[in-house]
Amino acid sequence: MKLQVSVDLLSLEQAIKLLKDVVDYVDIIEAGTPLIKQEGLKVVETFKQSFPNKLIFADMKTMDAGGLEAEMAFKAGADFTTILAVSNDSTIQGAIAAARKYGRYVTADMISVSNRVQRARDLEKLGVNYLELHCGLDEQANHLCASTASELTALRGAVSISLSAAGGINENTIQEVEAAGADVAAVGAAIYNAQSPAESARRLREKINSKVKALK
Amino acid sequence: MKLQVSVDLLSLEQAIKLLKDVVDYVDIIEAGTPLIKQEGLKVVETFKQSFPNKLIFADMKTMDAGGLEAEMAFKAGADFTTILAVSNDSTIQGAIAAARKYGRYVTADMISVSNRVQRARDLEKLGVNYLELHCGLDEQANHLCASTASELTALRGAVSISLSAAGGINENTIQEVEAAGADVAAVGAAIYNAQSPAESARRLREKINSKVKALK
Repeated sequence: MKLQVSVDLLSLEQAIKLLKDVVDYVDIIEAGTPLIKQEGLKVVETFKQSFPNKLIFADMKTMDAGGLEAEMAFKAGADFTTILAVSNDSTIQGAIAAARKYGRYVTADMISVSNRVQRARDLEKLGVNYLELHCGLDEQANHLCASTASELTALRGAVSISLSAAGGINENTIQEVEAAGADVAAVGAAIYNAQSPAESARRLREKINSKVKALK
Repeated sequence: MKLQVSVDLLSLEQAIKLLKDVVDYVDIIEAGTPLIKQEGLKVVETFKQSFPNKLIFADMKTMDAGGLEAEMAFKAGADFTTILAVSNDSTIQGAIAAARKYGRYVTADMISVSNRVQRARDLEKLGVNYLELHCGLDEQANHLCASTASELTALRGAVSISLSAAGGINENTIQEVEAAGADVAAVGAAIYNAQSPAESARRLREKINSKVKALK
């Protein structure tokens, strides 16, 4: 399983400071949606330039203009872009076409999908590369998320594509996320809100069965 | 009915050039989602500084972190921010709380909502200010949108809050949009792709029953 750090801070300067502390322990660096909207896609460009041997994940949460927004993210240097799984199939197809053109990946964020197993099968057929089981920040704040592990197990039984889990994962839950079949665990607050983000990232890494691999 | 120009260009410089040509004919200036993601919220700041007597609409298309993203948009100078109607109620409540704090407005974008009348009623109860009936760019490209006018009529019968219509509106359809009960018509391509954007905006304005009013 790969470890992804979700950078939900609002300034690029803070983000780079955090990433310098934790980058040795992670495989994927995520530019969070609010950070992209605040600062623009220069965030993704800067992440890729600063950390060229890491995968960069642009959490675009695209709902429309799938081809255009995916191309914007890939041109900025993203390896992954996200589309909302609730979006129109034509939006998803546009993002997938852009990913194939650039040799990159599309992750469908399953937030607010009601029939997850059915939609997961549709998305796999459309050609999505990753499904992200995502408990949003607002859902976390309101205790609205079901068990990530049991939801992952259900998706793992339904599709063969890669699965990512995000939302509230911490040192106590990361091992059950891996055991339930996640290929990526995205961790935000448990790293960036920790007293020592580096120490937190190091401990999260120790709990999973993979070493960090550089891209090059 | 108010006229909104949707700026779906990808550079702030092009956007300002377009707006200088058309601003006299419109009430509301919209910073499109791809433009915000490309350049960041400085787009909204620049629009507000450049056109202080116009309403500024930030098409944030928020799906999570409703309070945070709305506050970001309002701090940048937006009068309106958008949330996706398909998002979790807690996300919508967060955005509404921020709008009340800043004395601004939340527009719920109805894109990809399956049961529109029911969801419109829910959103009105939650305290959303505007509903936007939106045929997305990808849906337009694939001819997937039903009649805007008949959908508006259905919503107008279901809720009392303000209605906005967006997606594919042009000189031939703007009058039926107004007749069906829209309070705002958002026009993008019919203005920015026209040979003369100013002339197109002027003709659109002539077809509706309202004069431009300055804010101050």
